[in-house]
Amino acid sequence: MRGPIVAVDVGGTKIAAALVGANGDVWQERRVATPEQGLQPLLEHLLRIIDELRALVPAPVRAIGLAVPGVVDAATGTVLMAANLPWRDTPLADIVALHTGLPTVVGNDADGAALAEVWYGSAGASRSVVCLTIGTGVGGGLVIERQLVRGRQRSGFEVGHMIVDPAGPVCRCGSRGCLEVLAAGPAIARRMRAHAGGDWTSEQVIAAARAGDTLASRVLDETAAHLAVAIVNIWRLLAPDVIVLGGGVAAAEDLLLDPLRRHVAKLSPGRAVPPAALRLSTLHRGASVLAAAALVLDAYDQDREALPIAMGGTDTGNLLGSSR
Amino acid sequence: MRGPIVAVDVGGTKIAAALVGANGDVWQERRVATPEQGLQPLLEHLLRIIDELRALVPAPVRAIGLAVPGVVDAATGTVLMAANLPWRDTPLADIVALHTGLPTVVGNDADGAALAEVWYGSAGASRSVVCLTIGTGVGGGLVIERQLVRGRQRSGFEVGHMIVDPAGPVCRCGSRGCLEVLAAGPAIARRMRAHAGGDWTSEQVIAAARAGDTLASRVLDETAAHLAVAIVNIWRLLAPDVIVLGGGVAAAEDLLLDPLRRHVAKLSPGRAVPPAALRLSTLHRGASVLAAAALVLDAYDQDREALPIAMGGTDTGNLLGSSR
Repeated sequence: MRGPIVAVDVGGTKIAAALVGANGDVWQERRVATPEQGLQPLLEHLLRIIDELRALVPAPVRAIGLAVPGVVDAATGTVLMAANLPWRDTPLADIVALHTGLPTVVGNDADGAALAEVWYGSAGASRSVVCLTIGTGVGGGLVIERQLVRGRQRSGFEVGHMIVDPAGPVCRCGSRGCLEVLAAGPAIARRMRAHAGGDWTSEQVIAAARAGDTLASRVLDETAAHLAVAIVNIWRLLAPDVIVLGGGVAAAEDLLLDPLRRHVAKLSPGRAVPPAALRLSTLHRGASVLAAAALVLDAYDQDREALPIAMGGTDTGNLLGSSR
Repeated sequence: MRGPIVAVDVGGTKIAAALVGANGDVWQERRVATPEQGLQPLLEHLLRIIDELRALVPAPVRAIGLAVPGVVDAATGTVLMAANLPWRDTPLADIVALHTGLPTVVGNDADGAALAEVWYGSAGASRSVVCLTIGTGVGGGLVIERQLVRGRQRSGFEVGHMIVDPAGPVCRCGSRGCLEVLAAGPAIARRMRAHAGGDWTSEQVIAAARAGDTLASRVLDETAAHLAVAIVNIWRLLAPDVIVLGGGVAAAEDLLLDPLRRHVAKLSPGRAVPPAALRLSTLHRGASVLAAAALVLDAYDQDREALPIAMGGTDTGNLLGSSR
């Protein structure tokens, strides 16, 4: 099985797209702002990017993968709904497959991020992975024994709405004390405003902490305290090989991980979560397209022959086949 | 594949054993107190019960299943440790198999209870099951797509130590506000003592609530409020086909389930847990041996021919093979 994947991460504010080879090598990555004019311009934009990337390589592209921040019917590749994107019951996989003539896989971005740890993860050999993507919201992906667990409502692993403090503030979902309302970017900004006054974004808080601002560090520490409850609970329920953190907030790296590990140890004095089991996502330095590529590998992993082999081709590398 | 299973549920205070047929029909069940004199008397007792049950049927018994409240190495059937039982690194499956000459499967009782919903459950066709066994402690079992999820430390699904109130009382595990310290039998007894004074067991509180005691009902309501946080979190993370409640506290039946459903709806105003997805375990009326039988079916499900077929036999029914 040969040929690269065109992998597209479609976010509410930006789109990242690239060619991805078998070992997760990312070529020709491009990032553009997500068009804001509605469904048709967005689709045209996506198809144009895909066409451009295909034209860049002599090797035939074997499949297209798209990761979206929403609920996807995995069987059909239809986007049932998506955060900050104009999709409702949009048959995205069909649209892209019709245009390109290529097998197309559409999935949730957090699911893809968890699968990327299995397929491309730096630790390798992770069979069970929990992924927390912490940005404007908190998304999650769960892979057990290399199988994505979607739950019966295909709503995915809604770790952002795990209740970590029943006495906490009300979340947009209506529940009190969800992880998202306590640990996502807006919570960090809100906490900093409460301590320091003024207007802040979570990125600014992280930058301030990196520059040595003790109030900003305290805000990250308080955020880590809530996140630690979720980490301990996930560990006790699922004991995966790794729990990985991704998304904009994870860009804080050790400024978040260090207090997080301290709070986890404090909450769970008897049975520690091994430090190596809690780490930053393979994707955290920007290779978000790997989530989209991993969705393709996952879809064809079990029955690889189901992926049509295009005619011809000049490459000789094993670009799509997994090395695992 | 024919012949019944000898299924034994080994508890810290009592042992239940029976012959179990293919459809979960339970014959010749017996319940005895667990001998308290240590390892050897317990093993002799178990082997005697197994021999007695085998002698009762003309059909050759095809396998032995034992469910224990502890951590079991599934590959070898060794009990690594068990609550209230004198087992530490005890090769229980080997001991029983050597004595009986029969394939023997040993597993955790809460794992078995979850598997029993898949194999024998009244709803049928449940592929993903979360089981909460609420008694002196809170145990749990997790089955996803008919596969038992044990986690990498084989510690099982430690739902009893999910933190549901970070400001709650300290649990025996050292963490604050675990489900177990807030919702198991001792918590119910403690809450009743605080409200009503005097000495109570959880069984007495349940009986009092059934008799119309409003303080006892209030205690069950308060208990349900904590349990509801765990149920909502499990639903949001895993969205299984069913979440089943078993164990002594579940004997409260609607006295617990009704307030539990109310609290779940209150905690999760946006996205309800379907009422039918939350119910009492198939085992809750005493057929705890089905947990042990289900462990056998699970072990041989994937590769049924691995289960040796004993010679002879006079029964003609499909007693071991599953009808699913």
